[in-house]
Amino acid sequence: MSHNTFGHLFRVTTFGESHGPAIGCVVDGCPPGIPLVEADVQADLDRRKPGQSRFTTQRREDDRVRILSGVFQDERMAAQVTTGTPIALLIENTDQRSKDYADIRDKFRPGHADLTYEAKYGVRDYRGGGRSSARETASRVAAGAVARKVIAGVRVRGALVQMGPHGIDRANWDWDEIARNPFFCPDAKAAAFFADYLDGLRKAGSSAGAIIELVAEGAPAGWGAPIYGKLDSEIAAALMSINAVKAVEIGDGFGAAELTGEANADEMRAGNGDGPSFLSNHAGGILGGISSGQPIVARFAVKPTSSILAPRRTVTKAGEETEIVTKGRHDPCVGIRAVPVGEAMLACALADAFLRHRGQVGEERRP
Amino acid sequence: MSHNTFGHLFRVTTFGESHGPAIGCVVDGCPPGIPLVEADVQADLDRRKPGQSRFTTQRREDDRVRILSGVFQDERMAAQVTTGTPIALLIENTDQRSKDYADIRDKFRPGHADLTYEAKYGVRDYRGGGRSSARETASRVAAGAVARKVIAGVRVRGALVQMGPHGIDRANWDWDEIARNPFFCPDAKAAAFFADYLDGLRKAGSSAGAIIELVAEGAPAGWGAPIYGKLDSEIAAALMSINAVKAVEIGDGFGAAELTGEANADEMRAGNGDGPSFLSNHAGGILGGISSGQPIVARFAVKPTSSILAPRRTVTKAGEETEIVTKGRHDPCVGIRAVPVGEAMLACALADAFLRHRGQVGEERRP
Amino acid sequence: MSHNTFGHLFRVTTFGESHGPAIGCVVDGCPPGIPLVEADVQADLDRRKPGQSRFTTQRREDDRVRILSGVFQDERMAAQVTTGTPIALLIENTDQRSKDYADIRDKFRPGHADLTYEAKYGVRDYRGGGRSSARETASRVAAGAVARKVIAGVRVRGALVQMGPHGIDRANWDWDEIARNPFFCPDAKAAAFFADYLDGLRKAGSSAGAIIELVAEGAPAGWGAPIYGKLDSEIAAALMSINAVKAVEIGDGFGAAELTGEANADEMRAGNGDGPSFLSNHAGGILGGISSGQPIVARFAVKPTSSILAPRRTVTKAGEETEIVTKGRHDPCVGIRAVPVGEAMLACALADAFLRHRGQVGEERRP
Amino acid sequence: MSHNTFGHLFRVTTFGESHGPAIGCVVDGCPPGIPLVEADVQADLDRRKPGQSRFTTQRREDDRVRILSGVFQDERMAAQVTTGTPIALLIENTDQRSKDYADIRDKFRPGHADLTYEAKYGVRDYRGGGRSSARETASRVAAGAVARKVIAGVRVRGALVQMGPHGIDRANWDWDEIARNPFFCPDAKAAAFFADYLDGLRKAGSSAGAIIELVAEGAPAGWGAPIYGKLDSEIAAALMSINAVKAVEIGDGFGAAELTGEANADEMRAGNGDGPSFLSNHAGGILGGISSGQPIVARFAVKPTSSILAPRRTVTKAGEETEIVTKGRHDPCVGIRAVPVGEAMLACALADAFLRHRGQVGEERRP
Repeated sequence: MSHNTFGHLFRVTTFGESHGPAIGCVVDGCPPGIPLVEADVQADLDRRKPGQSRFTTQRREDDRVRILSGVFQDERMAAQVTTGTPIALLIENTDQRSKDYADIRDKFRPGHADLTYEAKYGVRDYRGGGRSSARETASRVAAGAVARKVIAGVRVRGALVQMGPHGIDRANWDWDEIARNPFFCPDAKAAAFFADYLDGLRKAGSSAGAIIELVAEGAPAGWGAPIYGKLDSEIAAALMSINAVKAVEIGDGFGAAELTGEANADEMRAGNGDGPSFLSNHAGGILGGISSGQPIVARFAVKPTSSILAPRRTVTKAGEETEIVTKGRHDPCVGIRAVPVGEAMLACALADAFLRHRGQVGEERRP
Repeated sequence: MSHNTFGHLFRVTTFGESHGPAIGCVVDGCPPGIPLVEADVQADLDRRKPGQSRFTTQRREDDRVRILSGVFQDERMAAQVTTGTPIALLIENTDQRSKDYADIRDKFRPGHADLTYEAKYGVRDYRGGGRSSARETASRVAAGAVARKVIAGVRVRGALVQMGPHGIDRANWDWDEIARNPFFCPDAKAAAFFADYLDGLRKAGSSAGAIIELVAEGAPAGWGAPIYGKLDSEIAAALMSINAVKAVEIGDGFGAAELTGEANADEMRAGNGDGPSFLSNHAGGILGGISSGQPIVARFAVKPTSSILAPRRTVTKAGEETEIVTKGRHDPCVGIRAVPVGEAMLACALADAFLRHRGQVGEERRP
Repeated sequence: MSHNTFGHLFRVTTFGESHGPAIGCVVDGCPPGIPLVEADVQADLDRRKPGQSRFTTQRREDDRVRILSGVFQDERMAAQVTTGTPIALLIENTDQRSKDYADIRDKFRPGHADLTYEAKYGVRDYRGGGRSSARETASRVAAGAVARKVIAGVRVRGALVQMGPHGIDRANWDWDEIARNPFFCPDAKAAAFFADYLDGLRKAGSSAGAIIELVAEGAPAGWGAPIYGKLDSEIAAALMSINAVKAVEIGDGFGAAELTGEANADEMRAGNGDGPSFLSNHAGGILGGISSGQPIVARFAVKPTSSILAPRRTVTKAGEETEIVTKGRHDPCVGIRAVPVGEAMLACALADAFLRHRGQVGEERRP
Repeated sequence: MSHNTFGHLFRVTTFGESHGPAIGCVVDGCPPGIPLVEADVQADLDRRKPGQSRFTTQRREDDRVRILSGVFQDERMAAQVTTGTPIALLIENTDQRSKDYADIRDKFRPGHADLTYEAKYGVRDYRGGGRSSARETASRVAAGAVARKVIAGVRVRGALVQMGPHGIDRANWDWDEIARNPFFCPDAKAAAFFADYLDGLRKAGSSAGAIIELVAEGAPAGWGAPIYGKLDSEIAAALMSINAVKAVEIGDGFGAAELTGEANADEMRAGNGDGPSFLSNHAGGILGGISSGQPIVARFAVKPTSSILAPRRTVTKAGEETEIVTKGRHDPCVGIRAVPVGEAMLACALADAFLRHRGQVGEERRP
């Protein structure tokens, strides 16, 4: 990953600012012959779309995606399929609300990238955060929809497992619950609590962080590569590249540091023909940087939204001390919409690992 | 990062197995004219070298490094300097103890990469873990010694801040203490405790995990790049690529998820000419993927050594159920020697970010 | 270069098919603060645009470019400038003539990529050649317009120096002549001859190849890098990636093989403060893969257009023998419009070399 | 390709200077399970080795290669095989003759990289040309020996087809002749002529250029990728990166510019089940950047050795005018030993294309 491209064989390049004419991405290296229509991508985009509940920004973006290239169908073909050439996906920006940007033009908002973009480039598109806006993540979700099709046998799901200091009760985990509440939360009881909790923060002009858990089931053993192409390393890079993410862990993660070697090592028993059966999954499905055939489990932390109503001390571009209040439309907890974004990044990382594995080693090899 | 190379402009390619003839690396893209002799690299390698206390593996490796290329001095030059061409660093393996490998040849050690290498490649050098051995990290430390010289104004230090479930007392933090105990621990009192704690585990044939904290001071604002070249993303990839690492966080990391937006945003006051002065550093010195000028702070978790004396259930290559005990010379806590390795990876990531920044933007630009 | 991206720090990703909704590119890594408006890009596109004379395809494409991202101007700024974030450039396809594609759908046109796309992907967008259409080169020209601004001190020009077997008379070389004839030919007399020559071929339904010469003046000594980052290697890759190009040479190129060492080596005399003065330029401005400060000279050969009216023997997708005639709108000599495309690729290669040089070595260093 | 690494999935990183302790390379991404011993690599190195006839440099280098990593054999395995991890290949320098380098230390040899390295880096290892020495190509040949095994079904051969202005008679082409003369020349009669011709030049302290032709037979249709990953683009980059190479062409190359579309297009007839049969091969086995199944044919031009005994005018580092005579041991025609080097580069480019194709598209797909 570097610049505005991630991936090696399955490569995604994104572009676009929050208040420019459009955002989008180019998905390069996709295998040919995969059925793909705009509705496939739209479905994932709709899960990330703002303005669907009072807990996300009230900006109204349809986020209608257009496929500009890389797919084809003629009258003899059963479906529109990928051709192996770059798939360009375009999303026009429609609700760039006209407003007075003088405040963020001249002041650095604490917790935002204003200062660092200015330091790096000497110029920045400050409208809505420009390139550093979470709006960019729509492009990731679009790319992720393609990635999911590349790894069709793998199911990638995500869940919000903590909001602010409040974790869910894992005993209540129900994947079906995720679609029923506005938090992508697998614990119905926690979701009910989060609604009240977040309402309070929202009304106070404050914000909350969150922790998201991702699980990919169905990946065979063998994806990833030793050393600097480790699957966990690439997943960590992918997730840490999401706006506002400050931490990533695989399997037991930081918790693994507290275990003894006996407790941490996942013992194995004879499987049913497709590799061994594990008695636990502290490793999160990755050993030595390579998938083990177990579910791949990753978690990431999203910091609280930096756009808040409480005045914060800061400086102007000219270096003078001042205060700033960030008005406008904001997610009180950006971690919520980070769930489909995290899924998309995990799907992309796995698609890339799959293609690279197949390149070096050929079609499926199993122990 | 991918395959066995990391970095984009400052690029490191490593090679070598635990029990092969040698390990080493090629450092490519180093700026010319930097004084560099073997002793510079050796100093860092000696900090990572095994067998220096009873708390690390008793394998005896001198880890003598040879510079094979990329440096030059003639009689008129004041010092041997880098030439801008690839710097090859070679470390011969000298203590590959001859032993019976039948056990690990045919059985998959839980927590190790045995199963996954076999699944991926169908063949593996099982002697001492082969390529997946922590011995590979010596190459990283060698490369890191070069990286430190590239970012000469930046001080990169690391400290072990937790062993097993036992954290240090941050009130006792003393960087000078690190060189005085065998744990790279900045808290003398905790170090004394760790000695007893680890002795107990070691004698029981068990092992412990650890958490390491890295701090880089002196990096200017502006390093890193938006989106997929985010500095935190690259640091996460670099650290997660280290053997046995399962989690990475920047600044407050997972703790940030528990804060409100007011508490998390680092307020700014007028600085003394070189950018603003921050009132806190929850962000760990990185905003929007770009360095802010504050100290860059990262932490990573190392799982407990998987090589333990307690018998663990596993399967053979043929899929039959069995048990395994991992004898031999092992670190009871691989997290200890991960400290200089983590420093090296952070230094490499920063050196690469510095060169890429200079490439796109030119010499220093400050807000 | 790989996939649909070229460059390392100055990176261009293109997308789009001949008869899809749009083509375009994402220019990543552009330095910030460079004035850039759509008219800058349009000027170069207009030089490549089809339908400007009877010697190019009669397809009517306005080739209007839109900048979707990566630039910014507010009311206090003197000009719209690049921000350092990705610059997306979009060109809608407007003249995708509806026609019967049955012939090229089922038959492989000799000299075209029909067979090989089918062999590789198993599916292809055959309308107008799909991704393999020369239409893709519009994206390169758009990117090249940005690249020219990155290397503002370097003048990149191209000229058609041979059509079919007919070379120009170099004694007549006049750069100003290039804009006066439809062939980008610097020899007015040759241009007059080419008009008749190509009319004859066009009316006969035949086609001609061409040789193009590129010259970049003003590049300082030091760009490029040894071994696999050689400037000539990257220029060769860039030019050979253009549709229908079959050969590339630098300086004297194949002619150098016929010289003795004495004749080939470019002698030097004292310069005027900015490096030595050369007595000849057999090397084409590149020594050891690094620019010498002399003009960089490259030539490339474009094969004759494969779309011709004469029936050619071929096979169908089913493997049956048949014949094919390629009707439709085609350039009788695609080499003509390859001139601005070649300039664009050279400009991109130089922009990338400049940024990488600055990254490794810092601001200008001269002997 | 960039820096000192080439390839994407099959990646080669080289290092080393002419008069440093050693040269070598790291071959990364090699598929596992391929039998590989040092003798395999040595055989190719011996073909390139200097001092084998009076027509190459008299420097005596054994060029003994050691495999330091990436292969494994235990007592139950039939052969030593690749493991999928990096293969480090080391060649010690043994005949770095001690001599007075004052002349080339302070003067820029015309035609050499002295000036440009100095301009770029401000420092250079001038002993024997340092990194810019053709000695580096031994590393390429070593890597190429591995690449040949990766594409085991493809036969890659090269031949010297022109020396100075003297071309061979293609009617005399006999591949077996190549091993019988010191020029890798397939025309016995031309070889006899070259011996006299080169003796004359050698005794006069002069030198000659050469043209080499490479042919790869057995590559299936489908390797390579559209646009910037074109197979011809990658071959061009690979060959142009070889020292002293100034031109590359595929198939008819520059000659294609002189043909009409009718003459140039390779017609097809029904094949024998494995793709169509072509009636000619003007395209050199590549259409649209993708292999067609025909033999892949490339040619490249090598300039005459720049190290000659005739005094040439030049300048010193201080900018003063002077003359230089290049004494020492040199190849009177570096093009001769470029034959195995070119083969190696073509093999590497094909191995990389094969793995990338397999990554995106999976195991063999044929039209």
